[in-house]
Amino acid sequence: MGEMEGVESGDPHMRMDLRSKVYKLIFTDTDRVDRAFDMGLSVVIVASVLAVMLESVGGINARYEVFLFRLEWFFTAIFTVEYALRLWCHGRPLRYALSFFGIIDLIAVLPTYFMWLLPGSQTLVVVRLLRILRVFRVFKLAHFVEDAPLFAKALKKAGGRMTIFLSGVLVLVTIFGSLMYLIEGHENGFDSIPRSVYWAIVTLTTVGYGDISPQTALGQGLAAVIMIVGYAIIAVAAGLVLTEFARAQEMQHGRRCGRCKEQKHEEKAEYCKRCGNKLPSKAV
Amino acid sequence: MGEMEGVESGDPHMRMDLRSKVYKLIFTDTDRVDRAFDMGLSVVIVASVLAVMLESVGGINARYEVFLFRLEWFFTAIFTVEYALRLWCHGRPLRYALSFFGIIDLIAVLPTYFMWLLPGSQTLVVVRLLRILRVFRVFKLAHFVEDAPLFAKALKKAGGRMTIFLSGVLVLVTIFGSLMYLIEGHENGFDSIPRSVYWAIVTLTTVGYGDISPQTALGQGLAAVIMIVGYAIIAVAAGLVLTEFARAQEMQHGRRCGRCKEQKHEEKAEYCKRCGNKLPSKAV
Amino acid sequence: MGEMEGVESGDPHMRMDLRSKVYKLIFTDTDRVDRAFDMGLSVVIVASVLAVMLESVGGINARYEVFLFRLEWFFTAIFTVEYALRLWCHGRPLRYALSFFGIIDLIAVLPTYFMWLLPGSQTLVVVRLLRILRVFRVFKLAHFVEDAPLFAKALKKAGGRMTIFLSGVLVLVTIFGSLMYLIEGHENGFDSIPRSVYWAIVTLTTVGYGDISPQTALGQGLAAVIMIVGYAIIAVAAGLVLTEFARAQEMQHGRRCGRCKEQKHEEKAEYCKRCGNKLPSKAV
Amino acid sequence: MGEMEGVESGDPHMRMDLRSKVYKLIFTDTDRVDRAFDMGLSVVIVASVLAVMLESVGGINARYEVFLFRLEWFFTAIFTVEYALRLWCHGRPLRYALSFFGIIDLIAVLPTYFMWLLPGSQTLVVVRLLRILRVFRVFKLAHFVEDAPLFAKALKKAGGRMTIFLSGVLVLVTIFGSLMYLIEGHENGFDSIPRSVYWAIVTLTTVGYGDISPQTALGQGLAAVIMIVGYAIIAVAAGLVLTEFARAQEMQHGRRCGRCKEQKHEEKAEYCKRCGNKLPSKAV
Repeated sequence: MGEMEGVESGDPHMRMDLRSKVYKLIFTDTDRVDRAFDMGLSVVIVASVLAVMLESVGGINARYEVFLFRLEWFFTAIFTVEYALRLWCHGRPLRYALSFFGIIDLIAVLPTYFMWLLPGSQTLVVVRLLRILRVFRVFKLAHFVEDAPLFAKALKKAGGRMTIFLSGVLVLVTIFGSLMYLIEGHENGFDSIPRSVYWAIVTLTTVGYGDISPQTALGQGLAAVIMIVGYAIIAVAAGLVLTEFARAQEMQHGRRCGRCKEQKHEEKAEYCKRCGNKLPSKAV
Repeated sequence: MGEMEGVESGDPHMRMDLRSKVYKLIFTDTDRVDRAFDMGLSVVIVASVLAVMLESVGGINARYEVFLFRLEWFFTAIFTVEYALRLWCHGRPLRYALSFFGIIDLIAVLPTYFMWLLPGSQTLVVVRLLRILRVFRVFKLAHFVEDAPLFAKALKKAGGRMTIFLSGVLVLVTIFGSLMYLIEGHENGFDSIPRSVYWAIVTLTTVGYGDISPQTALGQGLAAVIMIVGYAIIAVAAGLVLTEFARAQEMQHGRRCGRCKEQKHEEKAEYCKRCGNKLPSKAV
Repeated sequence: MGEMEGVESGDPHMRMDLRSKVYKLIFTDTDRVDRAFDMGLSVVIVASVLAVMLESVGGINARYEVFLFRLEWFFTAIFTVEYALRLWCHGRPLRYALSFFGIIDLIAVLPTYFMWLLPGSQTLVVVRLLRILRVFRVFKLAHFVEDAPLFAKALKKAGGRMTIFLSGVLVLVTIFGSLMYLIEGHENGFDSIPRSVYWAIVTLTTVGYGDISPQTALGQGLAAVIMIVGYAIIAVAAGLVLTEFARAQEMQHGRRCGRCKEQKHEEKAEYCKRCGNKLPSKAV
Repeated sequence: MGEMEGVESGDPHMRMDLRSKVYKLIFTDTDRVDRAFDMGLSVVIVASVLAVMLESVGGINARYEVFLFRLEWFFTAIFTVEYALRLWCHGRPLRYALSFFGIIDLIAVLPTYFMWLLPGSQTLVVVRLLRILRVFRVFKLAHFVEDAPLFAKALKKAGGRMTIFLSGVLVLVTIFGSLMYLIEGHENGFDSIPRSVYWAIVTLTTVGYGDISPQTALGQGLAAVIMIVGYAIIAVAAGLVLTEFARAQEMQHGRRCGRCKEQKHEEKAEYCKRCGNKLPSKAV
């Protein structure tokens, strides 16, 4: 199809043009055709992941083994061609190959080829789903795009505190887990400290599988303490994130003082908080 | 009763009037009688659902089978008559029949009739409960009605972001589930990718049944990561919704005082809380 | 002790005075002695509850049965005397007897006496713990007392919406439970609709015991939907309460406009939002 | 190394100087060398905890028992020397020994020595992890340090209310647990009141192990009530903490513009954001 268009144009730089056209089709979403391509690709991605998921179901695989096997190769062929086209039409193939989506695109193709070397590796084709993230560009949902930088900023600002917070939680969980290992011991399922730490995380996050659970009175008492502490930690963590959200939102306007160049002003501020100069009414 | 009223009025357009009266009784809640009808209907709905629930309890059904069977037909007869009346008295029967509540009213009646064709289908009469939503009109709880539009607006605004957020969670859960399928395998209950994805959802939402749980050290480590990620997702999701709530509330009107430029005014304020100036009646 | 004080005073209205003194000691917390009495009573209450808890532990009861039995009667005697004193010294005994704490005080005493009629009923003495709520008066923690009305108001205002919200959740849970009863059936532990509804509540609240859990693919899919819905419900419910909190806090000042008597003003308002009149600077 | 530096300096107060240098190295983090020491110590701490964790894993211990045993003594030797150095170089050794970190440092060393007296006690060396908290000084993450006082203040202010709140939850949990003990009894795993209270905590915090779960219809109904109450408690607790957060942030300074009376100013603002007037430097 692309080649026929090239013929139609009858241009001396035909080869170059074809590449540009493929590039536009695959990499951008400027017009309807590009968006249709993105949507179609998403459908193929989801279909290929569903095929692998069904293949893993015993009953279904027993019946349709050959069909699913062929389907997998069919999808892999499509994605291989697509990957080759992406390499070919991109201005700097290496740069694309080493980008986040370039690596994802490669990983989405490889597992099927290594199926014989590493049985079970084809399960990894589910990473194809990550390719769908590209399509979020297409929807460009107004509210999300509007808030994305605010959102990212809040997470980043909260990140520093979150790191310390998480370290603290890990220290806590290790100490609680070790205590439970001492108290409950092997006979109640607390086989080793790592497993006890795993149990402590299961408890603190209120997941509570129950595959390991304290049996002694002392162990149950300590478990109760961990649960209530876990409660408090949820509340505090939520507080950390939400406070940052609220703050980022207030600072979001992005106007810049004409005199002192201060940029962080509250949405409704009319004068610069640093030098008292009148602020512009709209973001500049 | 309706007919007797018709006789009393002795009106030539009696037939027409009877329909209007039934319409007023069934479809509106303007006076005490209408509201009493709605309340009575709600009681009958709850009673009919309770009957079906009791019928499903082995011990009770063994003893009162015949009584419960008759009760079910009694309730179904009432609802069938009511449905017929609704069709009859409504100005545009088809429009009613295809409306949300029209379909619910039909589904509330059908399962009993199909009992012999599809054994167990009578369980579906619990959809009758949805009919009770109608009664919320009656209560018209002041606070709820006051906030409903604000509430709806916030949910709608958050909806776009929520959709993307949920898609992201689904991608994450599929990838985590597939990894666990690879790591743990059939012998530890991770039979297939769909089942592993189910397990990942159970874990991420902190439900944690424990019917499937990781047994290997690597699997438990990955599970711990999923739990902590689930934690973060709760916090972020709560942040998304709450931020939107706060914003919707602040923007509720957005009127600005002509003198002091204060913008945060309550919906019903008529004078500026800050400088006492008369406020504009509409947002500017 | 009280009587000796009465003798000391040598007052003709001695009898009356003794009652007042006992009243002051038991019912109020104006001075140090009253507070000491309250604290002492709390200790006895906790001790009596601990005794009943220990009695329920097989190993401990086997050894100390006689001792714990006597201890229980000892505590019951104390509380009986206290209850009699309360009745005697209160101005209107019937009013006290029918008040919230009057009923709690009676229930705190009765179970021990009915031990022979209803074996196991002595477990109910744990309601004695409710009596400790009285002591919260003593602490009068500044921040709590300051915020209690605000807190109560927010809960009350949120109450109307919460009722509708909870009704909606109950309808949802009943419908989900019935669907699971149809899908999973007896062989997978979903014995009856009530039990399936119980399972739906266990899942929606993310408790997830795992005593009943879906086994079929369709059931697991529906369960996943319920979990994610439960997630959303948590976020929305939290939003409802928090929004009300924030609003109540803003309205808390309680100043009253001198002209139009409007009472709900924001903390920082300087002019009445209704009539534009200057507001008093402090609550009146 | 320290001693060689002492020699280099050729100072008469050499002994004194060496102690100061060691003090600076161990206790402070003023320059690069001090920070490198802190980081190195952290690595050794984590390594020693990992060694103990691995020792608790059956398979690993069977193979590397001797190696891990020697490693433990090696780490203990390091920490013993370090503890001695800390005592020696600190101006007031007793004060250090009785400080929070002094006690942690001692407990981090002792368990290995008591290994023969109390088998299993070496597990307690995981408290070594607490020593890492020291290193948080090093990172001095800007955002965290900036907000720490605000954070601490909010927690402290919320503390009073939290105490009462937690007491209320404990009373609730005891009463619910006792009721379940009465309703379910020994045959369904509710062996004693303490165990039933443990179950109630597991349920209220939505952990839900499922090691004990109600079997009777009445018990499951009560459990459903507890779960929904637990839900409400989460929301209210989150509300308590978050409200306090928001308040603390708003009141951060509480300065008031002399001209327009605007009160909400950022901590570092020097001019009123509303009217451009110079702000007072301290809260008035």
